[in-house]
Amino acid sequence: MSRGFLLVLSGPSGTGKGTVSKALLNKRTDIVFSVSATTRRPRPGELNGENYYFVDEEKFCEMVNSKEFLEYAHVHSNYYGTPKEFVFDEIEKGEIVLLEIDVQGALQVKKNYKEAVFIFLLPPTMDELRNRIVKRGTETQEDINRRFENAFKELDFVGEYDFFVVNDKVEDAVKDIEAIIRSEKLRVKRHKDIKDRVLLQGGK
Amino acid sequence: MSRGFLLVLSGPSGTGKGTVSKALLNKRTDIVFSVSATTRRPRPGELNGENYYFVDEEKFCEMVNSKEFLEYAHVHSNYYGTPKEFVFDEIEKGEIVLLEIDVQGALQVKKNYKEAVFIFLLPPTMDELRNRIVKRGTETQEDINRRFENAFKELDFVGEYDFFVVNDKVEDAVKDIEAIIRSEKLRVKRHKDIKDRVLLQGGK
Repeated sequence: MSRGFLLVLSGPSGTGKGTVSKALLNKRTDIVFSVSATTRRPRPGELNGENYYFVDEEKFCEMVNSKEFLEYAHVHSNYYGTPKEFVFDEIEKGEIVLLEIDVQGALQVKKNYKEAVFIFLLPPTMDELRNRIVKRGTETQEDINRRFENAFKELDFVGEYDFFVVNDKVEDAVKDIEAIIRSEKLRVKRHKDIKDRVLLQGGK
Repeated sequence: MSRGFLLVLSGPSGTGKGTVSKALLNKRTDIVFSVSATTRRPRPGELNGENYYFVDEEKFCEMVNSKEFLEYAHVHSNYYGTPKEFVFDEIEKGEIVLLEIDVQGALQVKKNYKEAVFIFLLPPTMDELRNRIVKRGTETQEDINRRFENAFKELDFVGEYDFFVVNDKVEDAVKDIEAIIRSEKLRVKRHKDIKDRVLLQGGK
């Protein structure tokens, strides 16, 4: 039996983490989505327990105190956190768990759980990054500027990640991530019984 | 500009290293084959400079003394070695260099050059491994037995490798290796200028 792994898909705002995650999950039924807890308000169409666990600050602090998070962070005036239990249970079952998360969160996960596979999503150009942040249309001009500046700074953290994927066309980004998944499934270190498997299937 | 890498495709005799290498090279024009030097005699159809550099023992020892090998080994009464210069030149140019090599050789490469990507090719079963060694038909019964016993012992070294690929159907093994290649090309550590590339293509 092989263990699964945590796939951290991360990158600055506007790189298309959400779009790429959705496309990947639509294409692949063998990937489990890690649902984060957050104190931010749902955007139109977002569902509790599916997109996020929407919780109030009191509940969030309780969870922090009882160390229920793999990471948590305060970003754009809200708290976000990844409940540990779900992720570890699924990995033990052999599942691939996808965590879509901002850069700060990913760096914390890396501190706490190096065994995860870290992918940094890049915009094809800085102009395109700005376009995408503007197009989102749910932010004030001030928010847009702050997001763009943060995004620009956050590009410096690409060096902390295992892989980078340029999100020019979504389907190509998905194919890159699928290659990473196929490859990571073949990692020797995730399998304890490779020789035994060959022996059991054939006998000497 | 990104650096290429050395892809070490290895495994015991009879796992199909040669067949898989050929299928991979036929399919992909972007992979360069690392030609080893050897003192063993050419098999029918093998060409000097293409399959191997066929050299005599005197020449081989000269090359060992002047440290021209990434690895060399004495296997089945013959010497085999991988000339360094070719491999490093190609990697610097951004190429993927494929080295098809036995287990002892791969372990030496690992000692001298950890940056390589190490793939262990596995037979689907031990019975199938024996069949393949027998089918080769160029060996005595004694050679066959020795190869099989070596192969059995060498399976223990899978833990030293990065990836394992089961060679049941050649085309599936090739697809696994292609996924590993695509994934390794996206490794952050092989690229020094990721942020600059995004900036240069768009400007801030």
